[in-house]
Amino acid sequence: MNPNVWLIGAGPGDPELLTLKAVKALGQADVVLVDDLVNPLVLDYCAQARLVYVGKRGGCRSTPQAFIQRLILRYARLGLRVARLKGGDPCIFGRGGEEAQWLTDHGVSCEIINGITAGLAAATACGIPLTQRGMAQGVTLITAHSQDGTMPDWTGLARSGTTLVVYMGVAKLHDMSSQLLAAGMAADTPVAMIERASLASQRECRSTLAAMTRDAAAFQLQSPAVLVIGRVAACQVFGAADAPVPAYAEPALRLSA
Amino acid sequence: MNPNVWLIGAGPGDPELLTLKAVKALGQADVVLVDDLVNPLVLDYCAQARLVYVGKRGGCRSTPQAFIQRLILRYARLGLRVARLKGGDPCIFGRGGEEAQWLTDHGVSCEIINGITAGLAAATACGIPLTQRGMAQGVTLITAHSQDGTMPDWTGLARSGTTLVVYMGVAKLHDMSSQLLAAGMAADTPVAMIERASLASQRECRSTLAAMTRDAAAFQLQSPAVLVIGRVAACQVFGAADAPVPAYAEPALRLSA
Repeated sequence: MNPNVWLIGAGPGDPELLTLKAVKALGQADVVLVDDLVNPLVLDYCAQARLVYVGKRGGCRSTPQAFIQRLILRYARLGLRVARLKGGDPCIFGRGGEEAQWLTDHGVSCEIINGITAGLAAATACGIPLTQRGMAQGVTLITAHSQDGTMPDWTGLARSGTTLVVYMGVAKLHDMSSQLLAAGMAADTPVAMIERASLASQRECRSTLAAMTRDAAAFQLQSPAVLVIGRVAACQVFGAADAPVPAYAEPALRLSA
Repeated sequence: MNPNVWLIGAGPGDPELLTLKAVKALGQADVVLVDDLVNPLVLDYCAQARLVYVGKRGGCRSTPQAFIQRLILRYARLGLRVARLKGGDPCIFGRGGEEAQWLTDHGVSCEIINGITAGLAAATACGIPLTQRGMAQGVTLITAHSQDGTMPDWTGLARSGTTLVVYMGVAKLHDMSSQLLAAGMAADTPVAMIERASLASQRECRSTLAAMTRDAAAFQLQSPAVLVIGRVAACQVFGAADAPVPAYAEPALRLSA
């Protein structure tokens, strides 16, 4: 059965980090609901679709989630093929699960199409190997605070031996730093702060757990940014001159069968 | 500067989960070194390349890492465009960082191209929202034991409030279950065990922390498999009938500019 709705991860920014499956679905969609973190260049792949912007625009408040869900439902019930396009991966802090559940509860079938999540792309773009042997036991993707107001258990995270990758953390740098220091993480633990990962305008600031708040201020770090905290954050496994830069001057790649 | 070597993530199995960037690089490569976890259908994108298999084949021991690295270097120094193709993402338990560092140290430039990592793809394919609000503070990707023999800090992980996604854990189910129970994780914590994620032959077994070893044996769970441990592992946000199945009967998608 073909789904009525695709929930699609647009990846971190570079349009070439879209999956083939995402490009194929975007090319078939009649209407695409576009989140604010999606690079406009990705929309080149929406060949025939009406584009509906549902993210924060120009300082306005974000479109309410309930409204977005009702909009998807309305389009799907009109028989249209609907794509919901989100930055990164729909199920990594993207509310893809909530939207899929709500659609299923309302009798609309959907398919979730993975995207490269921003945290992994940001690290790769800076030459940081998140799970490097001997340096990390794994990697934890986390937000600095959840929408229900609860905080992560920083003590458990500090103990875990995993590299921490923090999404949506720019406004919480001081809190994070204090909590992780209080949890026993070393003051000189390396930190990398990566702004606009995978785009030509990407910037990175290397620091330490104790200095990150001050260094981020001097760097004028802006959202969206990803933080990498752990020994691997001092690595750069390839030279900066070799860092991939999207070649936007090239024509967009097209799919054919 | 164009890289001499691409370290490419092939994703979890479904060829449509390749990124455009990966397909483009594979199409330009002169030689492709292929890992054993790569779906052979992905190799359709290697238009002009000599294929060299460097993974475990038919019970033989894996090609030594040092040999693979020297092979990449030799091809690159011949002026060939070399692609190293790995399952999942090169930097999530894929040794991509080690290979990139080694090549850089030997004067060979390289670019790492992200892939959809198996753990995230497996969860999505089963309708499990890894970071669902109110159920998880984030997600931790981990292996059951590292190659240097050390174990993760299960107590820290149990405390972290994150969903645990365990790679290469089939042989360690009993150890993991015991350690997490000893660390205070509830016996009825949901567990999903997902074999061959994203392929048509994908199978999943839902269980609990206390019952996972017994249930996996009854299910005859085989590697490669991914485990999801945490409250979200009881979810299925879309119906099983709607689960995406790769349409291998279709011709492979091609890129054009």
